[in-house]
Amino acid sequence: MSVVMKPEASPKDMARVLRTIRSYGLKTDAMHGEFQNVIGIIGDEKKIDLEMLRVLPGVQEVITIQVPYRLVSRSYIRHDVVVKVRDDVKIGGENPPVFMAGPCSIESYEQLHRIARKVKEAGAQILRGGAYKPRTSIHSFQGLGIEGLKHLRDVAKDLDMPTVTEVRSEFDVKTVAKYADILQIGARNMYNQDLIEASARTKKPILFKRGFSAQVDEYLSFAERIAGHGNKQIILCERGITPLGGSFKPATRFTLDLNVVPLLKKETPFPVIVDPSHGTGRRDLVLPMSKAAIACGANGLMIEVHDRPQEALSDGAQALDPRDLSGLIRSCLEIFNIESNIPSKIM
Amino acid sequence: MSVVMKPEASPKDMARVLRTIRSYGLKTDAMHGEFQNVIGIIGDEKKIDLEMLRVLPGVQEVITIQVPYRLVSRSYIRHDVVVKVRDDVKIGGENPPVFMAGPCSIESYEQLHRIARKVKEAGAQILRGGAYKPRTSIHSFQGLGIEGLKHLRDVAKDLDMPTVTEVRSEFDVKTVAKYADILQIGARNMYNQDLIEASARTKKPILFKRGFSAQVDEYLSFAERIAGHGNKQIILCERGITPLGGSFKPATRFTLDLNVVPLLKKETPFPVIVDPSHGTGRRDLVLPMSKAAIACGANGLMIEVHDRPQEALSDGAQALDPRDLSGLIRSCLEIFNIESNIPSKIM
Amino acid sequence: MSVVMKPEASPKDMARVLRTIRSYGLKTDAMHGEFQNVIGIIGDEKKIDLEMLRVLPGVQEVITIQVPYRLVSRSYIRHDVVVKVRDDVKIGGENPPVFMAGPCSIESYEQLHRIARKVKEAGAQILRGGAYKPRTSIHSFQGLGIEGLKHLRDVAKDLDMPTVTEVRSEFDVKTVAKYADILQIGARNMYNQDLIEASARTKKPILFKRGFSAQVDEYLSFAERIAGHGNKQIILCERGITPLGGSFKPATRFTLDLNVVPLLKKETPFPVIVDPSHGTGRRDLVLPMSKAAIACGANGLMIEVHDRPQEALSDGAQALDPRDLSGLIRSCLEIFNIESNIPSKIM
Amino acid sequence: MSVVMKPEASPKDMARVLRTIRSYGLKTDAMHGEFQNVIGIIGDEKKIDLEMLRVLPGVQEVITIQVPYRLVSRSYIRHDVVVKVRDDVKIGGENPPVFMAGPCSIESYEQLHRIARKVKEAGAQILRGGAYKPRTSIHSFQGLGIEGLKHLRDVAKDLDMPTVTEVRSEFDVKTVAKYADILQIGARNMYNQDLIEASARTKKPILFKRGFSAQVDEYLSFAERIAGHGNKQIILCERGITPLGGSFKPATRFTLDLNVVPLLKKETPFPVIVDPSHGTGRRDLVLPMSKAAIACGANGLMIEVHDRPQEALSDGAQALDPRDLSGLIRSCLEIFNIESNIPSKIM
Repeated sequence: MSVVMKPEASPKDMARVLRTIRSYGLKTDAMHGEFQNVIGIIGDEKKIDLEMLRVLPGVQEVITIQVPYRLVSRSYIRHDVVVKVRDDVKIGGENPPVFMAGPCSIESYEQLHRIARKVKEAGAQILRGGAYKPRTSIHSFQGLGIEGLKHLRDVAKDLDMPTVTEVRSEFDVKTVAKYADILQIGARNMYNQDLIEASARTKKPILFKRGFSAQVDEYLSFAERIAGHGNKQIILCERGITPLGGSFKPATRFTLDLNVVPLLKKETPFPVIVDPSHGTGRRDLVLPMSKAAIACGANGLMIEVHDRPQEALSDGAQALDPRDLSGLIRSCLEIFNIESNIPSKIM
Repeated sequence: MSVVMKPEASPKDMARVLRTIRSYGLKTDAMHGEFQNVIGIIGDEKKIDLEMLRVLPGVQEVITIQVPYRLVSRSYIRHDVVVKVRDDVKIGGENPPVFMAGPCSIESYEQLHRIARKVKEAGAQILRGGAYKPRTSIHSFQGLGIEGLKHLRDVAKDLDMPTVTEVRSEFDVKTVAKYADILQIGARNMYNQDLIEASARTKKPILFKRGFSAQVDEYLSFAERIAGHGNKQIILCERGITPLGGSFKPATRFTLDLNVVPLLKKETPFPVIVDPSHGTGRRDLVLPMSKAAIACGANGLMIEVHDRPQEALSDGAQALDPRDLSGLIRSCLEIFNIESNIPSKIM
Repeated sequence: MSVVMKPEASPKDMARVLRTIRSYGLKTDAMHGEFQNVIGIIGDEKKIDLEMLRVLPGVQEVITIQVPYRLVSRSYIRHDVVVKVRDDVKIGGENPPVFMAGPCSIESYEQLHRIARKVKEAGAQILRGGAYKPRTSIHSFQGLGIEGLKHLRDVAKDLDMPTVTEVRSEFDVKTVAKYADILQIGARNMYNQDLIEASARTKKPILFKRGFSAQVDEYLSFAERIAGHGNKQIILCERGITPLGGSFKPATRFTLDLNVVPLLKKETPFPVIVDPSHGTGRRDLVLPMSKAAIACGANGLMIEVHDRPQEALSDGAQALDPRDLSGLIRSCLEIFNIESNIPSKIM
Repeated sequence: MSVVMKPEASPKDMARVLRTIRSYGLKTDAMHGEFQNVIGIIGDEKKIDLEMLRVLPGVQEVITIQVPYRLVSRSYIRHDVVVKVRDDVKIGGENPPVFMAGPCSIESYEQLHRIARKVKEAGAQILRGGAYKPRTSIHSFQGLGIEGLKHLRDVAKDLDMPTVTEVRSEFDVKTVAKYADILQIGARNMYNQDLIEASARTKKPILFKRGFSAQVDEYLSFAERIAGHGNKQIILCERGITPLGGSFKPATRFTLDLNVVPLLKKETPFPVIVDPSHGTGRRDLVLPMSKAAIACGANGLMIEVHDRPQEALSDGAQALDPRDLSGLIRSCLEIFNIESNIPSKIM
């Protein structure tokens, strides 16, 4: 539910509405627009007397939203949200696609710097690299932790690139927020509401990956938890869903569900990016699926790159060679340019 | 298993190899190349004495193929197969994408002609329209049957377009082959080996849709049944797979699995097309997913079009308006043109 | 939609209602009950003037059914349907579970007879064995065909057992109906409406397996096609659904979905059996899952048995040794006996 | 990898082996058996010189385990693990099934006490109730938190029942461990390695639910994280997996995957329980699926019970009436009794 205030409503009217909503034990989210203000309601709306709200001075309209999320819907935020990582790095809206690239795991300062330099040359704007790795096996390399974060910060500073890295434990949220520009919540943590909320409270941009068996409505209901803590800097990310199995092995580790790209862009105002590295799990499919992602409207890509994939401590099979990244970025930008010259969209 | 003959092998050598294979109770498939001939073996290879074959005069090499299919693999057919529907309509290889469009169901001569004319104007080369509809419910419209086939032939003749239509019952295979240029085997019949084989024997091009829960290896094992009957005019088609369900409704009726487009093109020599109408189930996603399909290498698209979707006797929700088809085709061709200017492929 | 006639309605009233319904171009299905008659309607109900029907002489009630199937729903058939294969072999209702067992493929008269004798001794009532095998690969053993059917008939006669065997091609329906007591439609053919309808018309009992990615409503919509041709001798069968895949291999080839056993029994009046051989794909899981199936209400089991599994021409890994079958049947009957002593059901 | 020591090995031998393994930067897990000791190795085994270990004094055998988990496999722990919650409540091994029951959410002291009393009377041994609820929507009831935990402790004390409750946030692990006897890690947190490890370190029994799209190998790899922190008090729990979706709604919210019950019991030494409330999502399926679970070997059940389901703050549709619980427990025990009289297993 959201309350649209009249253009001529006074700050006093606004305050009264906020007070009234809170008197029902609910929280509020105020959005100040150029012409008018809108108030989002957080919590169980059934507690509220709708008619009561409608007749308060300054209220133009009370909108009931039927989807299970409200604050992240286009009914509530009607313009495209552009996440501005830096003045020159903006994700979403009419901006050209943004490329995030780097190794799966940060293995050393030297390794990260070597790869980072190459991805920057290839045209990537944001450096990715994992310090806290979500791993299935307790027996595998678990990431360098805080040491990795320091390498990330140092390399980023040296090359003047913003960074994105995954946060996995609630205990590390504040530390990660200190070292990185964008906090990534991985697919395995899409349902981890406490981690999501702790991350949201840092007010840093959140790259929020879709869980691999989550429906769109479910995904957005968890994104709502970010917005519900006052953080609208949300970057959505499709990274592949659980494939069907059977007598035959699935051809790819995950099924990249590109249908959701145009769908998410229609339902929500946030930028949507795609991770073709995890979404295919095979280096040779990264280029074609990157182009497909841009062709259906993705606002950016997140790509794993390693210059010595056979030595990589994780995910070598899907890492792209830095030399191939530059061709990939060029192709994607050409497709985007066609795209942006076509004015209208079909219904 | 396949037997590669030496360039200098004589017809007599060839005949001897064929005879030897058949003496084991197996069937053969001979491919006459420009420089040398290759013989494919159909049946249980374990029956054969490999060493015996290797020493026959004229034999250069005996190749064992580990995948569950052989005749449809790139190890057996090493060049792209181009399916030539007419002199001016070629699918696959370096040819620009081909567009098949028309109504889901043929409802009358008038309806089909009206829509066909519009899709032709929009740039579609092949007319689609269903006479025998696979339907879940016995209580729904089941298609016009033979009457529909006649409308299809008549409209096609009048507008000079080749046609594709689905064949559902083994009893109708010969009839459908008489009226249409391409026989479509629908997703629900991907496992229907008797229908597949009966259709293959007509020697008509077969548009063979992937079943909605089939793995790529499984899909190609059934495509092998077409090739095993000497029919290499195979058009593969991704049309969406069963989505994951759960507490929330899947956002789209099917999950369009575009990963398999570059994958199928790598594994097999046949053209691969995409059906974004069924693969999304929503009109508003058809355009973006069509572009994505072309961007990742599809050789064509199959699109449901209806000028009065609210009146359509089937699948109205996913039918595109003919006016939008022309923009779609233009966008797709622009993307293809970029594509075709990029020479190399990664990996 | 179904029309419930008054107890006192005359044959003439009944005839008038049937005539009226048919005058709308629809078909009818008449059920003669002890006290009153019910008429089912087949086809698109929207064509009918409901009010018109309601006022016809002899009509007590017109019932609109919201589910996508009608003739197979408990709203239409209110008592349990018992499929009587022979006087001493009845499936469904309050009858003890029935066991169908035998080899996956019929390989020879000798093999079938040897195994059949053992499964009969173990307590199985119905002999199963495949003559027309649905196979993924054109290179595998495809079944003995008509020769296999003859072995089946001969062995069955010698041992005095009724039989069940799969029909795969529409062309073979009549032949199979001549040789076997129950026609099985396999999971791969659940969507094959023409095969279903041809089989239904033989009036033989139909063992109708659920497709491996079909929902219950969808499954029953296809079962409706059997009932729609006047055949109510339907045995439903859960045999496992497509498992989820991913980085790790699914632990079992299929996921046996036992939830649907109590669900199908609630929704429909037909017997429901379970195939734990295909539903697990592993011999060592057949016993525990058989017991589970009976514990949740299955009316029978279909089990693959082979005395020399390593030599079996198909599905050896899941075939049970005949020696284990007898223990399995004993355990299942004990569980059924507990079951049948518990009077009421929850909710 | 595990190292089996000779029966006659001295403590000094043991210490030397432990020291050697640790010198490679790996961790160890020592199991003291009646006759001989076994040492498990935690971490990347490739770092170790296998031959070196084999020749150390006192070493009988070095076993390499091919599955992705080791410490939770039957190759490492060869006897059934019985989790002893109290002297009179033992889960696993030859013990009769244990029943955990109670409301989904703790709503008040009064509500919990009222229901707890009834489930105890019905025969349940362990009280369940959620204080920290994992919820999709930020707008729903999120649980009473610490207040709920206090009610749980107080009611449990009054009725002398051990308790199980879910822990969701890493920050709450210690608090929950103070108030409850068993810590539950929910399906949504199966991949939350930091929460798993923090919970394991409390040394409390861990009820570890399978994620709804996790394979068995993946599930056990995460269970390995519990064992890797020296906690072997693990209770595994199947609670339903993501159903397949499609045009038709899945008949149940989740697909209860009972195949994994006998499978997990074969692969691991730990007790396996089933949650039919979440695994079906429908009250009317809880009884039949409970019986099925016991019939295929489950060591216990976890069941949601509410005496006023229409008022429940969460999951009312799947909550059983306390009156029905007693019949359910009786039926399950009868099935278990048959079971336990059948000595051998197939295979």
